[in-house]
Amino acid sequence: MANNITKTGLSALDELCINTIRFLSMDGVQAAKSGHPGMPMGMAAPAYALWMRHLRHNPADPNWINRDRFVLSAGHGSMLIYSLLHLCGYDLSLEELKNFRQWGSKTPGHPEYGHTPGVEVTTGPLGQGIANAVGMAIAQKYLAARYNTADWKIFDYTIYTICGDGCLQEGVSGEASSLAGHLGLDNLIVIYDDNHITIDGETGLSFSEDVAARYRAYGWNVVEIGGDGHNIEALDKAIEAAKAQTEKPTLIKFRSHIGYGSPNFVNTHTAHGAPLGDDEIKLIKKNFGWDPEKSFVVPAEVAAHMGQCKTKGQAFQADYQKTFDAWARTNPQLAAELKDALAGMTTIDTAKLPTFDPAKPVATRSASGKTLEALMPGMPLVVGGSADLTPSNNTWFKGAENFSKANPGGRYIRYGVREHAMGSVMNGIAVSRLVRPYGGTFLVFADYMRPAIRVAALSQYPTIFVFTHDSIGVGEDGPTHQPVETVASLRAIPNLKVFRPADANETAWMWKYMLEHADGPAVTALTRQNLPVLDPAKYPGMKDFDKGAYVLVKADNPDVLLLATGSEVQLAMAAAATLAAEGVKAQVVSMPCWALFEAQDAGYKESVIPSSVKARVGVEAGIRMGWDRWIGDSGEFVGMGGFGASAPANTCFEKFGITAKGVVAAAKKAMQNR
Amino acid sequence: MANNITKTGLSALDELCINTIRFLSMDGVQAAKSGHPGMPMGMAAPAYALWMRHLRHNPADPNWINRDRFVLSAGHGSMLIYSLLHLCGYDLSLEELKNFRQWGSKTPGHPEYGHTPGVEVTTGPLGQGIANAVGMAIAQKYLAARYNTADWKIFDYTIYTICGDGCLQEGVSGEASSLAGHLGLDNLIVIYDDNHITIDGETGLSFSEDVAARYRAYGWNVVEIGGDGHNIEALDKAIEAAKAQTEKPTLIKFRSHIGYGSPNFVNTHTAHGAPLGDDEIKLIKKNFGWDPEKSFVVPAEVAAHMGQCKTKGQAFQADYQKTFDAWARTNPQLAAELKDALAGMTTIDTAKLPTFDPAKPVATRSASGKTLEALMPGMPLVVGGSADLTPSNNTWFKGAENFSKANPGGRYIRYGVREHAMGSVMNGIAVSRLVRPYGGTFLVFADYMRPAIRVAALSQYPTIFVFTHDSIGVGEDGPTHQPVETVASLRAIPNLKVFRPADANETAWMWKYMLEHADGPAVTALTRQNLPVLDPAKYPGMKDFDKGAYVLVKADNPDVLLLATGSEVQLAMAAAATLAAEGVKAQVVSMPCWALFEAQDAGYKESVIPSSVKARVGVEAGIRMGWDRWIGDSGEFVGMGGFGASAPANTCFEKFGITAKGVVAAAKKAMQNR
Repeated sequence: MANNITKTGLSALDELCINTIRFLSMDGVQAAKSGHPGMPMGMAAPAYALWMRHLRHNPADPNWINRDRFVLSAGHGSMLIYSLLHLCGYDLSLEELKNFRQWGSKTPGHPEYGHTPGVEVTTGPLGQGIANAVGMAIAQKYLAARYNTADWKIFDYTIYTICGDGCLQEGVSGEASSLAGHLGLDNLIVIYDDNHITIDGETGLSFSEDVAARYRAYGWNVVEIGGDGHNIEALDKAIEAAKAQTEKPTLIKFRSHIGYGSPNFVNTHTAHGAPLGDDEIKLIKKNFGWDPEKSFVVPAEVAAHMGQCKTKGQAFQADYQKTFDAWARTNPQLAAELKDALAGMTTIDTAKLPTFDPAKPVATRSASGKTLEALMPGMPLVVGGSADLTPSNNTWFKGAENFSKANPGGRYIRYGVREHAMGSVMNGIAVSRLVRPYGGTFLVFADYMRPAIRVAALSQYPTIFVFTHDSIGVGEDGPTHQPVETVASLRAIPNLKVFRPADANETAWMWKYMLEHADGPAVTALTRQNLPVLDPAKYPGMKDFDKGAYVLVKADNPDVLLLATGSEVQLAMAAAATLAAEGVKAQVVSMPCWALFEAQDAGYKESVIPSSVKARVGVEAGIRMGWDRWIGDSGEFVGMGGFGASAPANTCFEKFGITAKGVVAAAKKAMQNR
Repeated sequence: MANNITKTGLSALDELCINTIRFLSMDGVQAAKSGHPGMPMGMAAPAYALWMRHLRHNPADPNWINRDRFVLSAGHGSMLIYSLLHLCGYDLSLEELKNFRQWGSKTPGHPEYGHTPGVEVTTGPLGQGIANAVGMAIAQKYLAARYNTADWKIFDYTIYTICGDGCLQEGVSGEASSLAGHLGLDNLIVIYDDNHITIDGETGLSFSEDVAARYRAYGWNVVEIGGDGHNIEALDKAIEAAKAQTEKPTLIKFRSHIGYGSPNFVNTHTAHGAPLGDDEIKLIKKNFGWDPEKSFVVPAEVAAHMGQCKTKGQAFQADYQKTFDAWARTNPQLAAELKDALAGMTTIDTAKLPTFDPAKPVATRSASGKTLEALMPGMPLVVGGSADLTPSNNTWFKGAENFSKANPGGRYIRYGVREHAMGSVMNGIAVSRLVRPYGGTFLVFADYMRPAIRVAALSQYPTIFVFTHDSIGVGEDGPTHQPVETVASLRAIPNLKVFRPADANETAWMWKYMLEHADGPAVTALTRQNLPVLDPAKYPGMKDFDKGAYVLVKADNPDVLLLATGSEVQLAMAAAATLAAEGVKAQVVSMPCWALFEAQDAGYKESVIPSSVKARVGVEAGIRMGWDRWIGDSGEFVGMGGFGASAPANTCFEKFGITAKGVVAAAKKAMQNR
């Protein structure tokens, strides 16, 4: 040594570059007084090799559509990617690295999509990144199938991921990896940072399975690389071999040493999640022959060498542009379609939406299916799917084909019974900003993919989560399958649009809204059971659907407001009719999307929920949480006070008192509360 | 045949019993006009063999502490277990089978714990049952280690599970199975209903991995049994071999045929989730030589044969009682401890709780750790753990040892980075009603285990979910790790007690409350950052902690109420002091557990939140949802409007306006709103 440093067999320049990455990472964490230095120190060599020798990217244009994608699934090692981005010439200054984890910096604690140029997805919640990468690989396959021609390859990029033990212990990575193996995603290469350490100590405390054998069982190509974390020759070969085959995704199990270079903390969990301390950093720098008193140093030869990424990247993209232009000339229709898609403009002609006969009740899940039937033929970049509930979710559409290894142009993804992976894979598809995913399961199983929904909301991925069977209307399957708190718990997530449409028409307009707006995720809460179809001709207020809430049945100087969503709007309407017969003027408001309504101006809100009318009733076959905001101090609520029960749906509604009669009684009570 | 029926090689009586299970299941689903007949039809033979030949149980006493446990992880096949329970002599009448899925019956759509005698855990949400079974196996190992002696084995039961493709696709089963392999749980035997069919069609649509190889990679003993679903001899041998070895959990991959016996629907997804129809049922019965016109038939010889379970079970338990009595005589201390545990009484002497110096700020996660240090030595049946965040969650206690294969008496479980499995495994431990689990992770990762929390709440398992790092107080790790909506989303779950203590003392009392109450699950929201310690001598209102909310700083005829939880209580107190200096009388209320407060009588609630005081401010470093219930129409809220940001914690609080100054401003605004 000095201490634990080994002969790497790499060139002096390579070593210098690798150490620069290490030291920038250590310095960033030390300056922030928080962060994770151990992983960047251990993985600096393979990450450097990957970025310098394999990754086809252009730092000057992080949005180049055919760039290779890099996902740091082990997001806590964020200083690794920030160091690489800076050294390779992305728009991320050394100043930003010095401001690691500070307010307003471009270098947050975990990488955030849309926040830092070159960060492809938000990572940190473990397992998400590798599952996103599977989605990114699916999107690449789909784009290649749609746009590549015999002569021209417009989309042939590769998805690279670095993940750790934590990512591979998470169930979501298992689900996504099983799917990736099934689909034979040969464009996916995962480097597993096999460092034998987790926060609690040695991985052997809890994780002694044979990861390589498990991935082989999933149908992956697995390469195991031992050594001290610098076996770059073997890594190069593994990556080349992975790219040369067209059968399987590849897992490279790469033995590394967390905190490499730190005499006192290498191979310990101490190196994982806290600054090493000034003394240790000085010691490390001294051991490597660097000036121990200096921080954030980038040697000129490193800047020059790694800065070549920029010139190389420009050359990559310039070459590509020639290919692209030639393709565009010979395939003008496809080129026009792609141009539109890149512009992100989607407009749905209302005339294309299905119409529904007001005489024929229909479940909103079924109306959703009919809407997809109508729209999907005209939306080639939307891909659907379900977590093995296709016939129940009504997510299939006529003419759809399964996405598969043999048919990567298929527009329907069979996710299997893997809700969490579906959510995270859809997020990975969504960040293509070209292919738009939707996928279905039962609403109650939104819980299984909640971490994916949260990241979508945080990072504003345009993912569409289709949830059906949205209340005790599920009936006989019972409380394990009846959401009561789920709509509330989804409304709690910032930036998330939760739609609970009242009928078939609201369902069709919901799809129009979701498909036209790619500024964030949306979820649907659709019924299993049939609902009456409201006739827009009879209820002109419905034109304001996009405002999130509107007056469905107008009353002049109303005595009471009946506010409802989804399947309970019909109850509010029936109650209003009963009340009218008794001389009580009730105004019925449908509230399909609270978040959209919140965003309206005060005048519109006042027109829908007049502040002077204090007698109000909220009606929803779910819990009360959130409703007090609308019904106020004098309000009453008709809904669920706890979990449901196994019985036919109508019995459930009757027994739990969610009926027109119940709404009438609540309205009278609310009027007394005034 | 007729049609698809094969020669089974079983005795005529066995075949008759198996067909009775099949037909009861078909008839139950048909009568309910909903349900899942295919799985019971395909798995009737192995389930029958398991229950008749291997399961050591006593239908007359479903709570016998040393019974073998059976978990139907594929809970949708509930008619299978209901049929078995009825035929084996449990208190489940034929009438109940006829009332399958009806209001008030003991036979809900999916098996529910506490609802039907003989149902060990609630299943239906896929993957939960097998993960629960891992917890049940851990509990058995722990009880054996604690109570068995060289002479006597008081706990030597086995956990059997039937699961399907769906269960094995879910990530949670992968996480739990990896843990089970790591821990070498030889008392766990899983029969995998390998029927090649899911709802969407052939499993090959999405699930082509090598399941057996995957389980071998987890360190399991795997046996593969082919055939027509009647290879009972091989099953017997596999179970005997599994019980004879002491190294590994066992997976028996058992080839079955969904809808076996149905000429038109066997081996199709049509048989999975809908009644077969009267015509098909008649055809099936005819083919098997039964009277097609009769339903819910139990031939006398079947009743007699399977009814033997009752006499055998009584003999098992009588034998066991002798062992138990002999053990109790020679181990009176252990026997007394076990007797108390069985009575479910836990009383915690307040004097044993740690005390905290009001001069020394302490994080509630740290106070939680100190409380565990103080209490755990006296609570031998409580087992702790963490999903690889032990040093952050403060879940470790002095003298703890890791639970492991070599040391099953260890009281600390290293769950690994497997939050979902931790939740479900803890549920499986909790249903022992003897061993009480707690386990920690970051609050934001509650999302990863939400399906487990939901089942715990639904079924009122006494699981304790320890969540720390509960707000933007997380600081630099940033928005991926800062919960803002999580407390609200947990409060949304019925039956769940969510605690957000304001200081170290509230934290200690929270633990006392949680450990003394085993009637359902509880979750904690604890801070990463230090908080002032409130002196109970100075704030006598704190004695009412158990009421969920109490007056911390009393005001006579208050001008404004400041309602806060957790780390924001200090801000409310500081604001009250500022307001007092300006002549404004502010009453400060700490609200550590909304659910407990909701359950108080109106008089107490009025004393805490007087209805006449309309000027109110809610203060919580989370979203507003839920707060309108307390602050009312004139209320103001100081909290988060969206996701957080990566920066030091104090900066985050400052920038998001969650400060004493912000509370003062809000109080003044609220007073103007009146």
